Amino acid sequence: MHPGKSAEGPLTPGLVFEMLQAHQRTAALKAAIDLDVFRAVGEGPGSVASIARHCSASERGIRILCDFLVINGVLQKENERYRHTPSSAAFLDPASPACMASIAQFLSNQAMREPFEQLAEIVRRGRTSLPGDGSVEPENPAWVEFAETMGPMMAPMAAPLGKVVLNGHTGPMRVLDIAAGHGLFGIEIAKQNPQAHVTGLDWAPVLRVALDNARKAGVHDRYDMLPGSAFEVDFGGPYDVVLLTNFLHHFDKPTNVGLLRKVRTALKPGGRAATLEFVPNEDRVSPPVSAGFAMAMLTTTAAGDAYTLSELTAMYNQAGFTGITAHPIPRSPHTVVIGNA
Amino acid sequence: MHPGKSAEGPLTPGLVFEMLQAHQRTAALKAAIDLDVFRAVGEGPGSVASIARHCSASERGIRILCDFLVINGVLQKENERYRHTPSSAAFLDPASPACMASIAQFLSNQAMREPFEQLAEIVRRGRTSLPGDGSVEPENPAWVEFAETMGPMMAPMAAPLGKVVLNGHTGPMRVLDIAAGHGLFGIEIAKQNPQAHVTGLDWAPVLRVALDNARKAGVHDRYDMLPGSAFEVDFGGPYDVVLLTNFLHHFDKPTNVGLLRKVRTALKPGGRAATLEFVPNEDRVSPPVSAGFAMAMLTTTAAGDAYTLSELTAMYNQAGFTGITAHPIPRSPHTVVIGNA
Repeated sequence: MHPGKSAEGPLTPGLVFEMLQAHQRTAALKAAIDLDVFRAVGEGPGSVASIARHCSASERGIRILCDFLVINGVLQKENERYRHTPSSAAFLDPASPACMASIAQFLSNQAMREPFEQLAEIVRRGRTSLPGDGSVEPENPAWVEFAETMGPMMAPMAAPLGKVVLNGHTGPMRVLDIAAGHGLFGIEIAKQNPQAHVTGLDWAPVLRVALDNARKAGVHDRYDMLPGSAFEVDFGGPYDVVLLTNFLHHFDKPTNVGLLRKVRTALKPGGRAATLEFVPNEDRVSPPVSAGFAMAMLTTTAAGDAYTLSELTAMYNQAGFTGITAHPIPRSPHTVVIGNA
Repeated sequence: MHPGKSAEGPLTPGLVFEMLQAHQRTAALKAAIDLDVFRAVGEGPGSVASIARHCSASERGIRILCDFLVINGVLQKENERYRHTPSSAAFLDPASPACMASIAQFLSNQAMREPFEQLAEIVRRGRTSLPGDGSVEPENPAWVEFAETMGPMMAPMAAPLGKVVLNGHTGPMRVLDIAAGHGLFGIEIAKQNPQAHVTGLDWAPVLRVALDNARKAGVHDRYDMLPGSAFEVDFGGPYDVVLLTNFLHHFDKPTNVGLLRKVRTALKPGGRAATLEFVPNEDRVSPPVSAGFAMAMLTTTAAGDAYTLSELTAMYNQAGFTGITAHPIPRSPHTVVIGNA
């Protein structure tokens, strides 16, 4: 085939050019959040002058930035006025209860961003460029930031996860929430089952965020804390349910099998372990968000991955679990995978 | 995964999440180019092991990187083997004559990238964070890199530009190529008209690249050099044609009008000035690539812009040109705008 031509019409280097400049899109959204552009658009008349005034910014800068946001689908423009798209109104305007602008803070922190500056070297070595074991180093302050900022993104998944995990189970039960973070998943179970008692496990500074959220949800009298490393502390128990949300992807398979064995011994007979994960299809290249998550694990961990369902099932089985089932969370890239002790 | 994608159906934060991570796509393509992944895919069997061997890289790193490239449409995967897409074969494999991997070098150089780290501050101030006038500071070494690396991207535009500019004109003619860079546009005119004599104007270190390209094209006996700043040197002349390619966007309107006046006095009566520009529609948000180019001008210049046709026409008219016409280059984001002296 002649380069420059294909069966589907003339080839252009558009995709290559676009990818080489995709970093501009991240920078533009981050700058707009930092400058409070989305509140300005929601509150004011939407002219360049009014947004510039609200943001204490230049008109040239605001005009070019807002046009760029329109090009990228997170604002609209009509008669020289900028307006919210449904998506920017819901997820980027601080006036919206679903606003998730805070996640920009976590996703753009040094530890998440810096490795991408040396990605070729990371690919050569096959592990993060961060010191030690990367993002899972003990007491990594990134996880306090994660707990504090990623709640808005995880919140919509809590209700469906709680429903899948409880599966109609009522009455007294004990739940261990490993790597609780913001605590929202364990808290949701306590909300859905008024007789559930939840133990949140995480580094102490992170658990303060979880306890704060438990207080806000009014379930703190049934929430207690187990500070430390999931690999080191005694889990106590026995538990009816152990949650392992957004956790296994940080580690290699033998480490996960070892941890799952420890989880199983902390469960009552018939108890259930539930992981929340990005689970790509077996081809590892679909769906895009779940499969693409492997890149974050390459850059920030020594040996983590976005594991496929067959890999997760094998790990569960090796740890002695049976009856493994997968439950995709609708309209999210996440899947709950459950194993029976 | 592409700019401009709009939210339809149930609202999800997918677009926001994707934009906040879009920088990963730039880093992945850059790393794959730096590691020689695209040559490995073109030459070898396409297994993780064979690519890792060719690139002296880890299998974990190569597998996750190549999967990420598949997700983003610049490789294909089948039966655990990676293959070129038509687009990666044409534009990313160094074995292809149309390979434009070198542009990654220019687009990722410090001066182009660094301002995006402080975009909020740039929007506040309304001008580049680079010292002085940014990318147009005298003797900026970035332009040598531009001349050396951006040829593959500009080359496909040379033939249509030459045709539009010559417009059937044969016989002896003199052409001034302002900000010649790689020199490809002036050289193309010399190729299309064997009696054209071209003068390339640019900083001396840049002109060495242009002269080298003129030699390769076999037109160096009709190519001479005028080193210096377009705002300072005497143009000489009179010329039949003056080219101003990828130049006006760096400056504000009064500066451009002044320069166009100087161009007009260097033209023979009836001579033509031809600019090659990213020309967005009057809404300034379409088409995406031309309109989005304003962001590069915000970050790297004091007062440049992606000018609309009405703005370019006004500048031409103020400088005394008449009969302004626009000629979009097919399958490219560029437009040739011609004015008659």
